[in-house]
Amino acid sequence: MAMRTSRLWERQLVRRIWEAVGRPSIQIELWDGDVCGADRAVGRIIIREPKTLRRLLWNPSLAFGEGFATGRIEIAGPLIEVLTALFRGQWETTKGGPGQKTWTGRLFRRRGHSLTESQSSVHHHYDLGNDFYKLWLDEQLVYTCAYYQQPELSLAHAQVAKFDHICRKLRLKPGDRVVEAGCGWGAFALHMARNYGVKVRAYNISREQLAYARERARREQLDAQVEFVEADYRQIDGEYDVFVSVGMLEHVGVEQYPALGSVINRVLTEHGRGLIHTIGRNVARPLDDWTDRYIFPGAEPPSLKQMMDVFEPHGMSVLDVENLRLHYAETCRVWLNRFDDHAAKVAEMFDEQFVRMWRFYLAASSATFLSGFLQLFQVQFARAVDNTIPWTRDDVYRQAQRRSVHDSLSALAHN
Amino acid sequence: MAMRTSRLWERQLVRRIWEAVGRPSIQIELWDGDVCGADRAVGRIIIREPKTLRRLLWNPSLAFGEGFATGRIEIAGPLIEVLTALFRGQWETTKGGPGQKTWTGRLFRRRGHSLTESQSSVHHHYDLGNDFYKLWLDEQLVYTCAYYQQPELSLAHAQVAKFDHICRKLRLKPGDRVVEAGCGWGAFALHMARNYGVKVRAYNISREQLAYARERARREQLDAQVEFVEADYRQIDGEYDVFVSVGMLEHVGVEQYPALGSVINRVLTEHGRGLIHTIGRNVARPLDDWTDRYIFPGAEPPSLKQMMDVFEPHGMSVLDVENLRLHYAETCRVWLNRFDDHAAKVAEMFDEQFVRMWRFYLAASSATFLSGFLQLFQVQFARAVDNTIPWTRDDVYRQAQRRSVHDSLSALAHN
Repeated sequence: MAMRTSRLWERQLVRRIWEAVGRPSIQIELWDGDVCGADRAVGRIIIREPKTLRRLLWNPSLAFGEGFATGRIEIAGPLIEVLTALFRGQWETTKGGPGQKTWTGRLFRRRGHSLTESQSSVHHHYDLGNDFYKLWLDEQLVYTCAYYQQPELSLAHAQVAKFDHICRKLRLKPGDRVVEAGCGWGAFALHMARNYGVKVRAYNISREQLAYARERARREQLDAQVEFVEADYRQIDGEYDVFVSVGMLEHVGVEQYPALGSVINRVLTEHGRGLIHTIGRNVARPLDDWTDRYIFPGAEPPSLKQMMDVFEPHGMSVLDVENLRLHYAETCRVWLNRFDDHAAKVAEMFDEQFVRMWRFYLAASSATFLSGFLQLFQVQFARAVDNTIPWTRDDVYRQAQRRSVHDSLSALAHN
Repeated sequence: MAMRTSRLWERQLVRRIWEAVGRPSIQIELWDGDVCGADRAVGRIIIREPKTLRRLLWNPSLAFGEGFATGRIEIAGPLIEVLTALFRGQWETTKGGPGQKTWTGRLFRRRGHSLTESQSSVHHHYDLGNDFYKLWLDEQLVYTCAYYQQPELSLAHAQVAKFDHICRKLRLKPGDRVVEAGCGWGAFALHMARNYGVKVRAYNISREQLAYARERARREQLDAQVEFVEADYRQIDGEYDVFVSVGMLEHVGVEQYPALGSVINRVLTEHGRGLIHTIGRNVARPLDDWTDRYIFPGAEPPSLKQMMDVFEPHGMSVLDVENLRLHYAETCRVWLNRFDDHAAKVAEMFDEQFVRMWRFYLAASSATFLSGFLQLFQVQFARAVDNTIPWTRDDVYRQAQRRSVHDSLSALAHN
């Protein structure tokens, strides 16, 4: 399409934006070919029309994501690297703060975390269809940060390595009763049952995921050991030796943390122990408008400080925190590559705009883990008065040397 | 001394106190031999006079510690176990909260954390004389939580194991510039220089400790590699690859954490990394009145939530948190045993009341680590945008297998 020449004030404005976001090593090109930005750039952001530039002023996050999805913004060069450079510049200028919603963002009330709101948020993202996720997740449909114990691991291996890493931290032993809050398609629950001889009750409010998980449990004859329950984490009952949650806390909402803590406190035995694996932040701030609107309504990755509201009200002991953000950056990069390999199929299932939106989401996720904005925390905890906790982590790493991911994977293959 | 018979209300009161602190598995005996409490008790608390009972109502923490120091309260049975049972009962009834000062405690303004107040607090405890600490600390005078990597380690070995554990977490390499905030008698600074080839600037405001550290550095010909500076952590200047602080944060005061964070942010290089080792809590609450008055004026072990105020304002990434509270319980137990072995000598240096006061402090410290009240956190951090951070902790534990504490100790012996 033929577009008018950019005006002087527009060119000056773009330069000011580039400076304001910390002079990142990227270039910005306008619809008429005018370019500003770094001399040595990793890539170029191309703004295809004047209206998009104006929208970037109004709400940068929303306009950038929407612009990319509609093709009004394009990125030339390696997508993750360009976004990382852009975000890193922003991080350096703001240190992640002040973390306030834009004034335009404040106009909209965000979705809360009541039972029905949580249900609706989860449905929005996780019920896009198992066929969609099968295209680009690993074979077991694990939709959380993998653990690249060795850098050369495949995605499937790294997901299993993550499972075993958590199981070792939790010192699972045969007969333990485990409750899993937010179980996705059930891979971790089945892994624990299959490889560690534990009994698992796994909770989820995504109906599509649960149907898949139950079917798989039956097929693998683990349905006596693993029960999949369609209910919210607030409805967990029973008594358990272990509480574990991988990739759910992001959706819980910080105001609900004391409620989650009460659930844990209520269902854990005297020597009970637990682990929460979640996306987090160095500095508390709300999710950006675009991700909240298009990808994860109501999601809120917490800072460690916020996360302590799960544990402090019940005086629980935090035993171990590990930050695995580089692993999530890599996981998202691999997902993006696999997604790109199946872009034509995704376009068939949805449309081209959906494809671009999800490319942006996966690439931007990787970039936020590389640029300071997002972290991945594994937080291990126990009751304060439990003196049977392990003294060191030596056993976690000794066992890691003895039992490789290949053992777990061959157990899976023979099932 | 002949004491009057206990009155009915006094006997009832004691029973109510025992119930209020959670019916711990101990007994309480009054001056006339009246006993109440658990049937199966680990030991007995003996209140020698009516006035002490009344004082326990007024301010339990102060009266209990003072009563023990003056001999008006005695404990029959294993000291640490009796106190652990007592504290554990209290923990279970309060979960560490509400953590408010007693109303009587509020009458006194506590010492703050200005430069001069910190100086005075440190002087109160750490300048009791090197000869005193030499009696019961290990040979290197390390006055922080040891690391019992293997349960059978001696105190001296466990202190060296702690040093190496921290050095491995920090991935020290030859030539690194390290700043240590609060260096005690200098053992860790010298250890890092001797075994890892780093340059250390170590800060302290205890003059007695510094004199000792400097003399030792000269004797061991490490004075070109290690500089001991008499200054407060707020006065740290220069540029460093590593920031480390072992056992200082307890004295900093939570309101000063953003200031400490600013120091770290100012002096750390782009790929700088750091670790803070500190006593902490599961739930924020002020120090008890007795410890504040007699042992550590101004001390404030933080909850993890409070501790995040060091890092969040600068968007630093917490990479690793390890809770080593059982190690500190054991360290205090060993210190107490060694202290008891030299009680006669301590009585000569001070007096009998000082001996009892310190016995109570060391035993109660061990008990607080065993009963939920105190934790020991090692918090490792880095800048948010540093993507050169290690991916896993595998190397920390692989190196631990290769390099034993015996290597470090023989390096020390040959020096």
